[in-house]
Amino acid sequence: MENIEVIAFDADDTLWVNEPYFRETEEKFCKLLEDYMPAHTINQELFKTEIANLKFYGYGIKGFMLSMIETALAVSDKQVPLEAIERILTYGKELMQKPIEILDDIEMVLEALGKKYRLVMATKGDLLDQQRKLIKSGLEKHFHHIEIVSEKKEGEYKKLIRHLDIAPEAFLMIGNSLKSDIIPVLNIGAHGIHIPFHTTWEHERIDSKIEHPNFKQVARAKELLGIL
Amino acid sequence: MENIEVIAFDADDTLWVNEPYFRETEEKFCKLLEDYMPAHTINQELFKTEIANLKFYGYGIKGFMLSMIETALAVSDKQVPLEAIERILTYGKELMQKPIEILDDIEMVLEALGKKYRLVMATKGDLLDQQRKLIKSGLEKHFHHIEIVSEKKEGEYKKLIRHLDIAPEAFLMIGNSLKSDIIPVLNIGAHGIHIPFHTTWEHERIDSKIEHPNFKQVARAKELLGIL
Repeated sequence: MENIEVIAFDADDTLWVNEPYFRETEEKFCKLLEDYMPAHTINQELFKTEIANLKFYGYGIKGFMLSMIETALAVSDKQVPLEAIERILTYGKELMQKPIEILDDIEMVLEALGKKYRLVMATKGDLLDQQRKLIKSGLEKHFHHIEIVSEKKEGEYKKLIRHLDIAPEAFLMIGNSLKSDIIPVLNIGAHGIHIPFHTTWEHERIDSKIEHPNFKQVARAKELLGIL
Repeated sequence: MENIEVIAFDADDTLWVNEPYFRETEEKFCKLLEDYMPAHTINQELFKTEIANLKFYGYGIKGFMLSMIETALAVSDKQVPLEAIERILTYGKELMQKPIEILDDIEMVLEALGKKYRLVMATKGDLLDQQRKLIKSGLEKHFHHIEIVSEKKEGEYKKLIRHLDIAPEAFLMIGNSLKSDIIPVLNIGAHGIHIPFHTTWEHERIDSKIEHPNFKQVARAKELLGIL
């Protein structure tokens, strides 16, 4: 990691807590429909609906709300009372207003790394959701550039690196998702550091173990300071 | 308009048809609820709901879908059959899949202006909606940079101009919305050309007449070639 010039941080579950809030909402959603199906089955149906809708809605809370509504109709065979639809709208708006809980040592780590590297934030999801969280977090001042994309694949990383006007070898991505933050980055010749988070969305989970000269894993953010 | 270096184009209803598709969907939505209230009242309720939800949902089709669902619950006093909710979900997905209808002479105008200026696209809305339309339009190749923001206010334009590394006087914005494309741009010392479109969303409409040395209005895109 000697020639790194720019460090990009993922946001959700790397800088701040995100996935657990979605899980909490999923639980409330399953409870709402418990007369129709067991929680586990509803959860599976919701997941299937979310994946089928990704091409329409992308990532983010609004798509999650729409998929919950679609699932509620399907699971109840259109028998669910309209109060449940109303509740889903409320759950979504509540999710949008959750406080931002910054993960341990993040501020100190950004402060220290910002003195040696150009820092950017690179996250996928809904534009407004992500901007709202960034502003609430108070972390914006640490970043030279904010990149919010609809997907984190090789093409998007190549574009970002071109935009930053650096070589791929000078780019390091740090995040909690092997699938979105690490693998595409390694594939284009850049570096990746994985910081696992205790809760990962099914869609982001992969089983393979990564062995790659440009790859490292740390258990928590402050260990970054020993490497960088 | 002598020192212009970068021309930014708005997208919806400047490069391609957008608002009429929303209107079409609104009409279907009002028809769906005609047992409960007259179309005009439903439309007003929907508009009020959309504005109240802007801070949560921002612009774009997903927020529009969620606001239609919320309005259907309110207007029917939670009496609407769930089939109507299902229809709203379908209307939204159909809206996402509309073909792109590029406005008259746009390709020729972009081709010609691209030889003399750096062209960018600057649009507000949902990230995925806008990217989807841009790709379908085939117009991406004309633009050096694509900027999709959640709001088009002075702050966003200042950021874009800083990013483009030019003086405000070297920036020209072209679009159909006086409120989003012209007024904030004039306020920061840049140039604006307004191309009115026959259909404008209530929220984007303003009544005042603009008189400003950096402002021009043309009736159609090809007139730009006589000015620039």
